[in-house]
Amino acid sequence: MAIVLGDNQYGKAETRLVRVVRDGERHELRDLTVSVALAGDLATAHTDGDNSRVLPTDTQKNTVYAFASEYGVSTVEDFGLRLARHFVNSQPSIHRARVSLVEHGWQRLGPHSFAHAGAETRTATVTCDRSGAWVVSGLADLVLLNSTGSEFVDFVTDRYTTLPEATDRILATAISARWRHASADSDWEASFHGAREHLVAGFVDTYSRSLQETLYAMGQRVLAHRPELVELRLSLPNKHHLLVDLAPFGLANSNEVFVATDRPYGLIEGTVARDDAPPAGLAWW
Amino acid sequence: MAIVLGDNQYGKAETRLVRVVRDGERHELRDLTVSVALAGDLATAHTDGDNSRVLPTDTQKNTVYAFASEYGVSTVEDFGLRLARHFVNSQPSIHRARVSLVEHGWQRLGPHSFAHAGAETRTATVTCDRSGAWVVSGLADLVLLNSTGSEFVDFVTDRYTTLPEATDRILATAISARWRHASADSDWEASFHGAREHLVAGFVDTYSRSLQETLYAMGQRVLAHRPELVELRLSLPNKHHLLVDLAPFGLANSNEVFVATDRPYGLIEGTVARDDAPPAGLAWW
Amino acid sequence: MAIVLGDNQYGKAETRLVRVVRDGERHELRDLTVSVALAGDLATAHTDGDNSRVLPTDTQKNTVYAFASEYGVSTVEDFGLRLARHFVNSQPSIHRARVSLVEHGWQRLGPHSFAHAGAETRTATVTCDRSGAWVVSGLADLVLLNSTGSEFVDFVTDRYTTLPEATDRILATAISARWRHASADSDWEASFHGAREHLVAGFVDTYSRSLQETLYAMGQRVLAHRPELVELRLSLPNKHHLLVDLAPFGLANSNEVFVATDRPYGLIEGTVARDDAPPAGLAWW
Amino acid sequence: MAIVLGDNQYGKAETRLVRVVRDGERHELRDLTVSVALAGDLATAHTDGDNSRVLPTDTQKNTVYAFASEYGVSTVEDFGLRLARHFVNSQPSIHRARVSLVEHGWQRLGPHSFAHAGAETRTATVTCDRSGAWVVSGLADLVLLNSTGSEFVDFVTDRYTTLPEATDRILATAISARWRHASADSDWEASFHGAREHLVAGFVDTYSRSLQETLYAMGQRVLAHRPELVELRLSLPNKHHLLVDLAPFGLANSNEVFVATDRPYGLIEGTVARDDAPPAGLAWW
Repeated sequence: MAIVLGDNQYGKAETRLVRVVRDGERHELRDLTVSVALAGDLATAHTDGDNSRVLPTDTQKNTVYAFASEYGVSTVEDFGLRLARHFVNSQPSIHRARVSLVEHGWQRLGPHSFAHAGAETRTATVTCDRSGAWVVSGLADLVLLNSTGSEFVDFVTDRYTTLPEATDRILATAISARWRHASADSDWEASFHGAREHLVAGFVDTYSRSLQETLYAMGQRVLAHRPELVELRLSLPNKHHLLVDLAPFGLANSNEVFVATDRPYGLIEGTVARDDAPPAGLAWW
Repeated sequence: MAIVLGDNQYGKAETRLVRVVRDGERHELRDLTVSVALAGDLATAHTDGDNSRVLPTDTQKNTVYAFASEYGVSTVEDFGLRLARHFVNSQPSIHRARVSLVEHGWQRLGPHSFAHAGAETRTATVTCDRSGAWVVSGLADLVLLNSTGSEFVDFVTDRYTTLPEATDRILATAISARWRHASADSDWEASFHGAREHLVAGFVDTYSRSLQETLYAMGQRVLAHRPELVELRLSLPNKHHLLVDLAPFGLANSNEVFVATDRPYGLIEGTVARDDAPPAGLAWW
Repeated sequence: MAIVLGDNQYGKAETRLVRVVRDGERHELRDLTVSVALAGDLATAHTDGDNSRVLPTDTQKNTVYAFASEYGVSTVEDFGLRLARHFVNSQPSIHRARVSLVEHGWQRLGPHSFAHAGAETRTATVTCDRSGAWVVSGLADLVLLNSTGSEFVDFVTDRYTTLPEATDRILATAISARWRHASADSDWEASFHGAREHLVAGFVDTYSRSLQETLYAMGQRVLAHRPELVELRLSLPNKHHLLVDLAPFGLANSNEVFVATDRPYGLIEGTVARDDAPPAGLAWW
Repeated sequence: MAIVLGDNQYGKAETRLVRVVRDGERHELRDLTVSVALAGDLATAHTDGDNSRVLPTDTQKNTVYAFASEYGVSTVEDFGLRLARHFVNSQPSIHRARVSLVEHGWQRLGPHSFAHAGAETRTATVTCDRSGAWVVSGLADLVLLNSTGSEFVDFVTDRYTTLPEATDRILATAISARWRHASADSDWEASFHGAREHLVAGFVDTYSRSLQETLYAMGQRVLAHRPELVELRLSLPNKHHLLVDLAPFGLANSNEVFVATDRPYGLIEGTVARDDAPPAGLAWW
């Protein structure tokens, strides 16, 4: 028996970048958090303290800023591809680079004025090795709520079940969605906005017998409309809104007064995919 | 010398309330976090364990839900006034009630569908005693950014000063603002939207020689346009965006590439008021 | 009627400082978050964009690091006094300086190795003007729990009361305490550890008929044992632990199985003071 | 081409449980956050809104509380195994149950009094299917710091490298570690404390030429001393402490004054394993 090093990677996480484009009166603003993770011939760094193949994480951070200056930031996907390919192509010891990007939205208030758009973020993770590149796009913290059009009945019961059936309830969730592209070359901007639009419509338009049903409807709808996408992974917390019992006060509560609870919460996770999707390769992590 | 009880208050904090109005197809949604704090003849509760004048905080929570059912939630100010007056008027031992409300915004997506609007919240604090009521409205976490139109020069220097002058910089802040009303009877909805509009315009339209100057411009502008308001208090973190030094990579940086930093941050706090404002009474806390 | 500038202050918040003392093998470590707020002749900075009396917040940050080097950090109180006095004494336009310090604890693991001690922090706020200095020490996020020895009965009831009486319950809180010193010259280290010891003992040793009673017992006990302290302010969230109803499963629950809830929570705030305490001056904020 | 449902699971996340043992004067306290995730024949729940195989997440929560009452909570591993086996064995449609547990520590202050122990948590994830059970134990948020005994030199440089070599630096990290057991039957308590002790010793005793080297030393040491463990996964943020440049103030800085930074941070992730480890099966997630 021997003790050995297994999978490993390293990099700079959460580099905060704001890129302004100042061509003329009307400025553009991109606000990103960028994380880099590199893997390769790094065994002796672990076992012998040999840094001769270790590109410092500080250099990775510098590269993010320098590339933002040299090439600009068009989309998170393009910027991530450029960074990931750079590390794999320029460092012989690095075999795989994964760049995860979070874009924070801003709404325009004027030619050079902006308001932060809220918690929702656009995300991308780009993974490259010497054989190719994989792109996963997505969004996080998109919080949606239907105040009716949701039920939960006819479920399994056992000794520990006390939940009453609900024929009309609030359904609310904070969507985390990631979708895999068929190729590493796409119209990222159109694809993102199309996928987001169909996620939202899938939530809004589905009469929901469970959050599972809503999850599938959302994923199905995105894939049906976006041929460039082959697989979606959704993670949906059920943000419970509990009906308050007002009977002790002599009041009825016909689905009007709710407690929004923090914990615990249901968590519904699922994948929707094309049955002819190409292999995922290194896309997921 | 004796040891004595001084100022004290107690209550239920952060009661989460979602109120749906279901009159017809088109639902309305109000999402609040409500905190109650009561003060009065509570000395023996502290010194003797005598609870005979203590209305449980659990009851306060119940009252929030019952009132939401019975009276609805029109504005945070009205709902807060109703709650605060109830506690003072119904409990002989309670002399002062303070109700702090935070409203979380939702954007309409459909007749009964909504998307969470982001981090910005609308706030109100209502304070009542037997002599009257005071209302302070406000907002928090409204994050604004100007990508030019800001400088910081001609400041004091001492032995510890290394900051270079900046003739063109990003100015960004997360506005926390509270404004005191002349009376406890107003058109809360119009007042809030008017104050918010002028805060934003004050930020966007001001050429800024410091965040202090922007603060005053915002406050001055709100008071000039909203006669029902008499005093504003603003707390403005300077969300620093530091210019990245790209010279080591042979690149210029003409205000295009920035690091958005978390800590430390400047914090600029100030009050803007009418010189004939009525006494603040119990408005502030 | 005119619109005027009222109270204002500005400064650098949350400067993160780690100071190592390396005299010999055994290192010492102090880990602080320091916030500075200055007030004075700053009206024209707000109204005219005149920065000629504004010491940059960046300079304030530099001063924190330089003083940590030059003078070391013995206690948060001493370090805060040195900083606050420096700003008032060296800047003619600054009339008041307030320095708030949070110390993060580390436990020793070896001569130069440490483990972070947890969420509890030691705090101090030092305020100086040309007439003197005031020191408030304290702690935050000290979470204590008694699994018995607490009841809540004989309280007021009204139409909205549903809470049953509890003759045996869990009592838990996260203590935020601040105590004012009689003078700006004291044995800060002994005072802090003494105050903390009696706060804890006050919680542990008191049979509690309400969190209010526990609050007063804690404050009374600290003042009775620490003659250098004249006033305490305590803010105690009631971290509710709700008994789970196991009856539906045919199980009893004799105070053994609880839900720890996040929100809402009771919030009990109070002051305990000597009746001959000197005036508070600028101590509180 | 068809659109199909892929991997999916659902459950109740972050159920907060406090279990008191009251046998006699001296109480015992266990404080857990428990998350359950179930997978099985759930396709029609997604595609047809058919809940006939869905055990409500509310029931899962109830089961956590009921089992805490009926069986007590000895260790997170044992409690997790009991829960996971229950779901798989009692629900024909559930083929896999994963229970993730986080234990929050409390230090004893008296027979029934406790102080919260800080941010560090003990963790376990137990996964069962009809063929067996897998146990991964761990800890999170154990923050360690060495104020010397760390260097970073002889690394790769490229066009974007500006980092100077450091022959003496602070090394600090927040350890997240998970270790896989050879079997689902072990002395969990002894194993946890042994693994934790050797993780800490590995950090403290290693002269570090990189955080990668420290990672491997920690993992190697745990496996060398704990034969019941077969694989460790470590995730180590490099909590950078940057030397402050005091030269502008005419001061030297011989590794005494540091800025503790929040973002960005290095992130070093790695696995250390026995080369004869049994297959991981469903252990990881």
